[in-house]
Amino acid sequence: MKEKLDRLNAIIAEISDIGDAMALLGWDQETYMPTGGAETRGQVSATLGRLVHERATSDEVGKLLEALVPWSQSELKEDSDEFRIIKNTKRGYDQQVKIPAAMIEERAKLQAAGNIAWREARQNDDWAKFEPYMDKWVDFVKRTADLFKPYDHPYDVLLDFFEPNMKTADVKVIFDGIRPSQVELIDAISKKPEVDDSVLHLHYDRATQLKMGEEVSKAFGFDYNRGRQDEVHHPFASNLGYGDQRITYRVDENFFNPYFFGNAHETGHALYEQGVPKEKHRTALYGATSLAIHESQSRLWENLVGRSKPFWEWYFPTLQKQFPAALGNVKMDTFYRAINKVKPSLIRVEADEATYNLHIMLRLEIEIGLVEGSISVKDLPEVWNTRFKEYLGITPPNNAQGVLQDVHWSFGLYGYFATYALGNLVSAQLWEKITQANPNLPDQIRKGDFSHLLGWLRENIHVHGSKYEPQELVQRVTGTKIDGAPYVKYLQTKFGEIYGL
Amino acid sequence: MKEKLDRLNAIIAEISDIGDAMALLGWDQETYMPTGGAETRGQVSATLGRLVHERATSDEVGKLLEALVPWSQSELKEDSDEFRIIKNTKRGYDQQVKIPAAMIEERAKLQAAGNIAWREARQNDDWAKFEPYMDKWVDFVKRTADLFKPYDHPYDVLLDFFEPNMKTADVKVIFDGIRPSQVELIDAISKKPEVDDSVLHLHYDRATQLKMGEEVSKAFGFDYNRGRQDEVHHPFASNLGYGDQRITYRVDENFFNPYFFGNAHETGHALYEQGVPKEKHRTALYGATSLAIHESQSRLWENLVGRSKPFWEWYFPTLQKQFPAALGNVKMDTFYRAINKVKPSLIRVEADEATYNLHIMLRLEIEIGLVEGSISVKDLPEVWNTRFKEYLGITPPNNAQGVLQDVHWSFGLYGYFATYALGNLVSAQLWEKITQANPNLPDQIRKGDFSHLLGWLRENIHVHGSKYEPQELVQRVTGTKIDGAPYVKYLQTKFGEIYGL
Repeated sequence: MKEKLDRLNAIIAEISDIGDAMALLGWDQETYMPTGGAETRGQVSATLGRLVHERATSDEVGKLLEALVPWSQSELKEDSDEFRIIKNTKRGYDQQVKIPAAMIEERAKLQAAGNIAWREARQNDDWAKFEPYMDKWVDFVKRTADLFKPYDHPYDVLLDFFEPNMKTADVKVIFDGIRPSQVELIDAISKKPEVDDSVLHLHYDRATQLKMGEEVSKAFGFDYNRGRQDEVHHPFASNLGYGDQRITYRVDENFFNPYFFGNAHETGHALYEQGVPKEKHRTALYGATSLAIHESQSRLWENLVGRSKPFWEWYFPTLQKQFPAALGNVKMDTFYRAINKVKPSLIRVEADEATYNLHIMLRLEIEIGLVEGSISVKDLPEVWNTRFKEYLGITPPNNAQGVLQDVHWSFGLYGYFATYALGNLVSAQLWEKITQANPNLPDQIRKGDFSHLLGWLRENIHVHGSKYEPQELVQRVTGTKIDGAPYVKYLQTKFGEIYGL
Repeated sequence: MKEKLDRLNAIIAEISDIGDAMALLGWDQETYMPTGGAETRGQVSATLGRLVHERATSDEVGKLLEALVPWSQSELKEDSDEFRIIKNTKRGYDQQVKIPAAMIEERAKLQAAGNIAWREARQNDDWAKFEPYMDKWVDFVKRTADLFKPYDHPYDVLLDFFEPNMKTADVKVIFDGIRPSQVELIDAISKKPEVDDSVLHLHYDRATQLKMGEEVSKAFGFDYNRGRQDEVHHPFASNLGYGDQRITYRVDENFFNPYFFGNAHETGHALYEQGVPKEKHRTALYGATSLAIHESQSRLWENLVGRSKPFWEWYFPTLQKQFPAALGNVKMDTFYRAINKVKPSLIRVEADEATYNLHIMLRLEIEIGLVEGSISVKDLPEVWNTRFKEYLGITPPNNAQGVLQDVHWSFGLYGYFATYALGNLVSAQLWEKITQANPNLPDQIRKGDFSHLLGWLRENIHVHGSKYEPQELVQRVTGTKIDGAPYVKYLQTKFGEIYGL
């Protein structure tokens, strides 16, 4: 069995290497690739993707697992690395082997064409341009779900690609549990005077923003010897394998938020990847365990740290010195209230902490409806606008700022959105545990000391890589599965104080 | 046979895709990769290299070629693309299949360790640090040559990796033919008053240099939609597949030459790759046919254009406006003489056109001696210094500026150097044909019009990709094989005029 496990690990290491190369191809595509290289890049990525799929679903892997799975169940401790390597590999194999190569090719082509159509559609506010691709995608994801019959719910299949073993019913229960409180909070805030956030829309020069962002990332613990920062249109964080985590940013010189909070967010993602130990690289335990856990890290640094009062008690004086024209005469409290202004708005990525999850719930309902067949693609703009009004009290003036705003659907990412909201919830669950374990955290943050916070995350989350499934990890760390109560409590406390509720 | 050829082409396309990914891995390693990513990058590149080797030497390819080669010889025209695809693939297969996987791994490890040792050795002028790796490499390349027995000369095997079908004896004949004239020319120049090139060592600000370089590259014909420019320590050009050719540069604010001529040189390489048509991408006819032909393109743009009088008649007035402090009161002729100053010097990459080839001849003799066993590694510093004095009239003051100056040997690139000098020779052969076909070329260049020159190169060289072997290509275009006479004549005419010989 030792030999079989060694062989399996060797195959996993090779897949990991190809995957790391694919991560570089993707990063370069968004950062530096000239436009003329797009077609070649598509071919190269598709070929490497096929090599990974071939390896991950090979007969050899199937046979190795046939022998290793029963052996691991009888001979290994469930908590051992070996047991988990076999379990994770079996999970991936069972998932990938069901998808025929033809559908993988179909998906790649639909991604390329759908994404181009979406860009045009959004730019010209032209839903009709994107509708045929949305039709194709809904058909595609339904067929994908069918490959995994029997299931409790077809949407479970889609969720599972991003959030292992998360069920549609569980997500519904979680979201139903928090919706009333969030809506009530937003309603209460809407009756209070609107916060003046004009200070955020003054001039913040590019070079100083970058210097500041690097300073903050370093203070959080981002290791620039094992990563870097580059400019893109739509920021993301990318893991190129051990020792190489890359974050990206965009800068708006007339709006403080996009760079600062974007940078804090992507730094949070990268800190997670930088915290997975070297021994896990090239194994089935490397990388993040799920998108929700990933998002819990980015949102924790962006919001629970970056939009907190202790953080600005530390950093606001520095910021004032860096931007004397904009902030020299501004009180810390004015600034703090501005960056925490709650107001229902059209665009998810610009939403505040209190309204953000509602954007997600809307998308989740629509995706489930599309998969169930209770919502049809041609009605989508209307469905979007009607429900948006219901949830957030405003009606999108056009489809570009409505149903066409997100890239995800054009790229076939159905089942993805829920992880954003789940990440918010987990961030608050973790925060509760962290502050219980380390009541001095606010004082540490007031001094710009993030080492204890990062240390806790390293030890409790990062070090495990993908050894534990997300719900299992949250349970291990917090004593319960993913739970909305701490996030609601966090929102109520924070905004209760800011708005005097 | 059609099916067999289709299958072969599909395998070649896949290999091409993996190769394009490897080119990106290499480019990123030199441009943006954080230091912490080095180990991972090494693993990823090694894995992709192994995948290429496995595919290129698979039993399937062997069997396809067994059927296709005789068929192509009886049924296809020798000048047809299909014939050449089969021929090129057979050539690569025969070469690669002889090298066992263990030696490929050995080479990768020796490259990593040897390169690190060389960097330290050069930095600290510590030959002893690098000597053991040089021993290992000489042993390795001898064993490589042995895999290809019988041969006329073991060094033929090494040459052949970079310059298909070039023989040691042929190179010797070519070099022996030009050496006396080059030595005589340098000798004659040494008796003339030394040119004052102090104007090149004034302040040239970085931003203006970059602006100027981009302007010149564009004027030459470099398409920035299908390529880009980035900063590195040691400039190179890299082909990432159709539509994506990347050049790199370094800037010295106190020396005009490195950026300007480096940029012209790398642009020349990239223009070659940009000129290979899309239909050849992902086939066995894509890319440059050899390093000498590649170098003929870079040297042509760097020297025959970039160091020519017509070029500066066009560009010097612009340059004066860009750098008024340095050049405002300088005469064009003073500048022209400065950039063409001939003086034997220690470092190959800084050598002028008249002395450059002597640096190469020295290295070629040493490499042949090492492979034949007539030179031993431990004697290398002494051999280097003695012959350097013989060839160039000066003795290196230390090994860092002598035997340790080049990266190539640390990286196992034995057989490579000759292609630099051969490239010089071919550039002059082509230039002779171009100016015969287009006597107005100097006038066109005086007007900044390089379109006819590039058009000729596209049509006669670039369009063919690697369809023809280098000697065959040169023969087709110039009527003779690689020949030193045009280069000698070029040097004599140019420097005869500059130095009044």
